[in-house]
Amino acid sequence: MSDRVKEFRLKREELNEQVLSRDNINIKRFFSLDTAVYNDGALDTKTKELLGLVASVVLRCDDCITYHTIRVREVGLTDEEFDEVMSIALVVRGSITIPHIRQAVKLWKEIEN
Amino acid sequence: MSDRVKEFRLKREELNEQVLSRDNINIKRFFSLDTAVYNDGALDTKTKELLGLVASVVLRCDDCITYHTIRVREVGLTDEEFDEVMSIALVVRGSITIPHIRQAVKLWKEIEN
Amino acid sequence: MSDRVKEFRLKREELNEQVLSRDNINIKRFFSLDTAVYNDGALDTKTKELLGLVASVVLRCDDCITYHTIRVREVGLTDEEFDEVMSIALVVRGSITIPHIRQAVKLWKEIEN
Amino acid sequence: MSDRVKEFRLKREELNEQVLSRDNINIKRFFSLDTAVYNDGALDTKTKELLGLVASVVLRCDDCITYHTIRVREVGLTDEEFDEVMSIALVVRGSITIPHIRQAVKLWKEIEN
Amino acid sequence: MSDRVKEFRLKREELNEQVLSRDNINIKRFFSLDTAVYNDGALDTKTKELLGLVASVVLRCDDCITYHTIRVREVGLTDEEFDEVMSIALVVRGSITIPHIRQAVKLWKEIEN
Amino acid sequence: MSDRVKEFRLKREELNEQVLSRDNINIKRFFSLDTAVYNDGALDTKTKELLGLVASVVLRCDDCITYHTIRVREVGLTDEEFDEVMSIALVVRGSITIPHIRQAVKLWKEIEN
Repeated sequence: MSDRVKEFRLKREELNEQVLSRDNINIKRFFSLDTAVYNDGALDTKTKELLGLVASVVLRCDDCITYHTIRVREVGLTDEEFDEVMSIALVVRGSITIPHIRQAVKLWKEIEN
Repeated sequence: MSDRVKEFRLKREELNEQVLSRDNINIKRFFSLDTAVYNDGALDTKTKELLGLVASVVLRCDDCITYHTIRVREVGLTDEEFDEVMSIALVVRGSITIPHIRQAVKLWKEIEN
Repeated sequence: MSDRVKEFRLKREELNEQVLSRDNINIKRFFSLDTAVYNDGALDTKTKELLGLVASVVLRCDDCITYHTIRVREVGLTDEEFDEVMSIALVVRGSITIPHIRQAVKLWKEIEN
Repeated sequence: MSDRVKEFRLKREELNEQVLSRDNINIKRFFSLDTAVYNDGALDTKTKELLGLVASVVLRCDDCITYHTIRVREVGLTDEEFDEVMSIALVVRGSITIPHIRQAVKLWKEIEN
Repeated sequence: MSDRVKEFRLKREELNEQVLSRDNINIKRFFSLDTAVYNDGALDTKTKELLGLVASVVLRCDDCITYHTIRVREVGLTDEEFDEVMSIALVVRGSITIPHIRQAVKLWKEIEN
Repeated sequence: MSDRVKEFRLKREELNEQVLSRDNINIKRFFSLDTAVYNDGALDTKTKELLGLVASVVLRCDDCITYHTIRVREVGLTDEEFDEVMSIALVVRGSITIPHIRQAVKLWKEIEN
């Protein structure tokens, strides 16, 4: 696991704890729902993480892209599969996604090694 | 194939022909690219259509949702798989997607029969 | 309650039932969360409905605007208060909201009588 | 001027009057600003209307697209110029704009005659 | 007032001056309108700032979130009220807002002290 | 050409090469389409770059704004023309664009010298 991935996770967990420590029941319920929808079910986790990744790119959310790029790597996405997800996001949402795709590709190459 | 699906397709094709008949080379190239990215590759067509569907819901594009809902039905998506795609879109993009999910579910039930 | 409001509610309930009858636990949990966040709490329901209304306009969701416009009327919003919410949405999100504000104002006048 | 254009304008003016009759000073000021930015200046009205048109397509606002399509026709946009604006919007914002571009092209052909 | 808040304000004012010094009358008019809509009226400033805050989160504008978070603190928002605004934004707009809510909560805690 | 512009271009080219080196044919085709739509045609390059700039601001893409701001400067946009593009983007898309317009104006002043 690269330093960048470690750092991303640490910061993410620290901030999530800050949010969850505020004791707002609805925010807590949302967070557990956000975990639940990606669990294995009729669709497996890999497919669900792909859905999360493509949604993150078309919505242009860099933090979400980083999270799901790491996740799809963990569940065994191949290089070509990754590129095909990017190509769909690019065609659906247009050139406005290019800056985000550049970052996703850069991260993908880093965590590949 | 229900009447609604037939009508949707006819109207879509008619309008696509109007657009393509204008002879703008870049628009034509975009349209063929838009077909190409969903073809079987490292990821199969079913997975790619799921990516198209989730992107359509989070981007709240009813016309696109109709198109991809019909397509995922054709490639054999099950009821439970469909619901899981909707649940991810709902959590990623929030209550603002509910009006679109209502329409998607209504269409899904129609084409199921 | 005007015919338009009655019809909107009937259709909304019918479609919500279709969605909820599908027995996807995460979708159900999301729907109850979507009710819970508008309940009286540290902020009262009126203020929360205003938040829902302004969010609906800046996100340009006509169905959501209709729902929250009816709700803020029920909880006693005045004409001037309604206009001020619209003015904030308009300035935050720009002229792109005007078609939606036109519909909101039209509905507001209808349910006023 | 086609019937559809006449009808669009009548309805638009009627609703605008409803909005402006509410006497919210900030909404009125916004509306006059919305007119002012398209006036001849360092850039001429035609160029500014093109900017309004491309913005409307990438933001997927059908009402705005109708308005600016009529306007660019009035200020003398040619067929090829219209198509090039559409091609830029399509590439910037992706396939999600296609349903809106279909409507724009349909309207363009109607008002051409 | 924390250093971060001071710095944010200084930079914001400096850049606003750059924009306003350009002498485009319409931009100037927009900026004064942007101030005017938050002034006390039928709705008080606190409620209006809450509207600005929720709009900023659902539109995922970090700079706007920082500005309105500082403002709602100044006008006396409590911890629980702040959390309830965040919970509504989260449910309306989904998990895509979480990275922005993390930043908002972090800032809120900083300026609390 | 300022240091900031040079650096922006170097980084952009480096990342583009990473993306294109992945040998996904559809991504490559999209990239060449993205160049083609801005070429001289019925509309000249300057007008097309203005369309790209206004689209970038209303879509709030800082990287795209930087790119098109540099481009419009190269093709001879004047100060007043630049401000008028910004004023249209601001009115179309509202105060949410202000943080991006601040950055665009700052960059414009830098590359002016």
